[in-house]
Amino acid sequence: MKNKIFILDSTLRDGAQGQGISFSVEDKLKIVKALDKLGIDYIEAGNPGSNQKDLEFFKRIKDIKLEKSKVVAFGSTRRADVTVEEDKNLKSLLEANTETVVIFGKSDSFQVTEILKTSLDENLEMIKDTIEYLVSKGKNVMFDAEHFFDGYKRNQEYAMNTLEVAKEAGVHTLVLCDTNGGSLQGEILEITKNVKETLGIIIGVHTHNDMGLAVGNSLMAVEGGATHIQGTFLGIGERCGNANLSAIIPTLELKLGYEVLSKDKLKEIKSTAMYISEICNIPLKDDMPYIGESAFAHKGGMHIDAVCKIPVSYEHVKPELVGNSRRFLVSEVSGKSTIYNQIKKLFPNFKKDSEEVLLVTERLKELEYEGYQFEGADGTVELVIRKTMGKYKPFFELKQFKVIGEQPSYGGEFSATAMVELTVDNNYEITAAQGQGPVNALDKALRKALEKFYPLLSSVRLVDYKVRVLDSDKTTASRVRVLIESTDGEEKWSTVGVSEDIIQASWIALVDSIEYKLIKDIERKVKTYF
Amino acid sequence: MKNKIFILDSTLRDGAQGQGISFSVEDKLKIVKALDKLGIDYIEAGNPGSNQKDLEFFKRIKDIKLEKSKVVAFGSTRRADVTVEEDKNLKSLLEANTETVVIFGKSDSFQVTEILKTSLDENLEMIKDTIEYLVSKGKNVMFDAEHFFDGYKRNQEYAMNTLEVAKEAGVHTLVLCDTNGGSLQGEILEITKNVKETLGIIIGVHTHNDMGLAVGNSLMAVEGGATHIQGTFLGIGERCGNANLSAIIPTLELKLGYEVLSKDKLKEIKSTAMYISEICNIPLKDDMPYIGESAFAHKGGMHIDAVCKIPVSYEHVKPELVGNSRRFLVSEVSGKSTIYNQIKKLFPNFKKDSEEVLLVTERLKELEYEGYQFEGADGTVELVIRKTMGKYKPFFELKQFKVIGEQPSYGGEFSATAMVELTVDNNYEITAAQGQGPVNALDKALRKALEKFYPLLSSVRLVDYKVRVLDSDKTTASRVRVLIESTDGEEKWSTVGVSEDIIQASWIALVDSIEYKLIKDIERKVKTYF
Repeated sequence: MKNKIFILDSTLRDGAQGQGISFSVEDKLKIVKALDKLGIDYIEAGNPGSNQKDLEFFKRIKDIKLEKSKVVAFGSTRRADVTVEEDKNLKSLLEANTETVVIFGKSDSFQVTEILKTSLDENLEMIKDTIEYLVSKGKNVMFDAEHFFDGYKRNQEYAMNTLEVAKEAGVHTLVLCDTNGGSLQGEILEITKNVKETLGIIIGVHTHNDMGLAVGNSLMAVEGGATHIQGTFLGIGERCGNANLSAIIPTLELKLGYEVLSKDKLKEIKSTAMYISEICNIPLKDDMPYIGESAFAHKGGMHIDAVCKIPVSYEHVKPELVGNSRRFLVSEVSGKSTIYNQIKKLFPNFKKDSEEVLLVTERLKELEYEGYQFEGADGTVELVIRKTMGKYKPFFELKQFKVIGEQPSYGGEFSATAMVELTVDNNYEITAAQGQGPVNALDKALRKALEKFYPLLSSVRLVDYKVRVLDSDKTTASRVRVLIESTDGEEKWSTVGVSEDIIQASWIALVDSIEYKLIKDIERKVKTYF
Repeated sequence: MKNKIFILDSTLRDGAQGQGISFSVEDKLKIVKALDKLGIDYIEAGNPGSNQKDLEFFKRIKDIKLEKSKVVAFGSTRRADVTVEEDKNLKSLLEANTETVVIFGKSDSFQVTEILKTSLDENLEMIKDTIEYLVSKGKNVMFDAEHFFDGYKRNQEYAMNTLEVAKEAGVHTLVLCDTNGGSLQGEILEITKNVKETLGIIIGVHTHNDMGLAVGNSLMAVEGGATHIQGTFLGIGERCGNANLSAIIPTLELKLGYEVLSKDKLKEIKSTAMYISEICNIPLKDDMPYIGESAFAHKGGMHIDAVCKIPVSYEHVKPELVGNSRRFLVSEVSGKSTIYNQIKKLFPNFKKDSEEVLLVTERLKELEYEGYQFEGADGTVELVIRKTMGKYKPFFELKQFKVIGEQPSYGGEFSATAMVELTVDNNYEITAAQGQGPVNALDKALRKALEKFYPLLSSVRLVDYKVRVLDSDKTTASRVRVLIESTDGEEKWSTVGVSEDIIQASWIALVDSIEYKLIKDIERKVKTYF
């Protein structure tokens, strides 16, 4: 029988306070469903008192049947000078009509007198009244003790009083918040231990990453007896962010033997993170623990050799357990081993020390020097291997393309047109397309021209398009690297192009994408008929 | 008298094993100088045995006089079947001719027998021979005990033996490495304590971030008696990265009272990080502890109110101590307070509750909904405020622009031309320019046209150009956000533009940049003459 740790995800509330983050109601609903699938216990979805938009969300969520997650509304203790019935924030909180609510209040005497500008006793009354009121309305209530660790260090008795009052008023969980993110690990451990021993009910922790300790401090609190952790799925949040739940949950399950998510859901943690990052419109950082693209990506030549022999030699857990996979990065540091592995997949007969392998390695380094990056561009890597080894012939010959972007007069509509002229085995085609910009126009024109000769290209669509300015100090004359992800519904592949010009960089990546697909199609035919 | 913690920065060695990282010799020299200015004790600059390029660096560094840092070469214990004199890696290590070297060897019995495929005794001989040899050559030697914590848990006696052998052979520092990044905080503390108590000499720690604990584990080791920390300045490195020194150093100095950097250098930590990130060609993440753009950026309305009253209420240290500064983010969550602060700077007479402030807030939210982000785009924010408040008149009227990108024939040179037609107070100008891409061509043509009327624009140049694809699932038809940073040699400002088309998005940001400059110029004249 495993011990259970409860998770509260505050992506939609605390996370929304991070720089550059902003959710529509639709975004919020999608994220709730994704977290519910994993089995996240509580989803703190908004503060209806401070953000009217949230009320619409709380209305809509009622129509959605969730398997496990409890959607939670967040709000403040009543204002110092009003009754609970008169407090507008509490009115909105009740209007949100969730089964569970989280009330936050001050536990630091300094915050009470200097920021709230009220008396220590009145603050205790505010905590008591608010919680009793909500309990009387049938709510499950949790108490977030703001600035708890700072407050405990400043005035231990008062900080503990705030918790005692909240407990007596009927909360089922007391959450100790390191609101400024400035507490050290030892402090978190000692204080949490003391609180748990004194108060006994479910103790939770809410850390921030201002010293890079949000994850570490959450785990210290668990060691001190906490069984409830608050954070955000990707670690986003105010300033340096909240505790990164996607890093904490695998450690709790795989290393400490706790029950956290629903059964067998840990392996969906990476795909869930990718999904949420798309909705948040923030890139999923490659170096994220457990789930990042680089988490099990080996580059050093010796590491690769070792991991090929025995995976546990350089991996602390099996990547599959979190839905991730091992990768070998093709780069100057990885050397011939890695590149040879890639070549062997395509052409099993070439030996590691052959001239061809050497040529491919040199060519990749050359291109890297020009700004190409092949990590995550498997489609282009395959084409470079083929081109260098003479196992390639172009599928078409470009005669000309022209792209025109026009702003006809002040305030008029911007328009973009592309014209493409090419031949396939001496058959000539010229066509044009309009688009929402020169790259989009060119993409459409190129496909239009080629689908005539290769109808199967109609199943190909782009799913991602990324631009990276390389030497941004050269500003508008900088080299640009374009990374494209394509799919034909069955397979996904990525291709890359580099140029001082974004249109040409996009062209290179688009052509690679199309040719990769056409080659795969030949491979499939070979498997079928030979 | 403060206690000292030694820092070893491995950006140039372990950091180079991170995805997408690659340094030229020039890059390395720049980074060494920057770290030396701060007073980083050791700079691990390369592994000359595995990377021939590093030898060139070690030659060049001899000509550079450093104030404090010791440049260190890194290499392996001798191979199992060769003598120290014959070992090629050791030959290269000696050729690097540094005063100090770091030798790494296996401390985990499993690694010795399964990966190195040699005997436990032979491994001890390898450690002994190598270190004695280098000490006899006059080197200061440190020993990196690879996989130490895993090895200690698997076979404590053997792991300790490897350290004892290294100590007897003459090292001055023993570094315990959590090579796979899988050790928990309690383990790090206990094991480090035991090692320190048993062996007494300087104990160091080298952690990895596979569980998000690299920073936390480094600090736990210090609590266990370690006085030497290895990491990388920005936390880059293999897989999920090394310990982030820029997060650890301020905590050691400000919270734990250690002496780490040279006197008074802590406040240069942010600028050093920015400099190094430019050389590494990786963006400095906004949420980095202490030094990130967002580390002291407040967004929630209540946080801003509180911080304006009393900074320590939501900041765990003063931002100036690390060279950072407080910021208030203009966004839908921050509400009227923040926007009012921005407006007050320009137009001190408008009251917080005025209609104008409300209109500006609404307009900014509208634009945010379209994809604009104003955090970090102060120039555009000022223009939006002025335009909404009627304190603005365009400096020119665009008649037309046209941009043409041409790929004339397969393999021929891509070319881009832009034509701009505009009037200034009914004076007409038409001009054209060529560029390395459509945006560069447009930028040049616009300035060329306007400098005729506003000669002072010739001092303006762009210093940064960033592109962000917004809804990348719409691929080539996605909205694009362009952020431009400009300078006139005295001031820097940033402007932003959003559109489905990169040319139009760039146009918007370019025009804002130019108009911002012209307005500042009027302001200066007002200050001079009124």
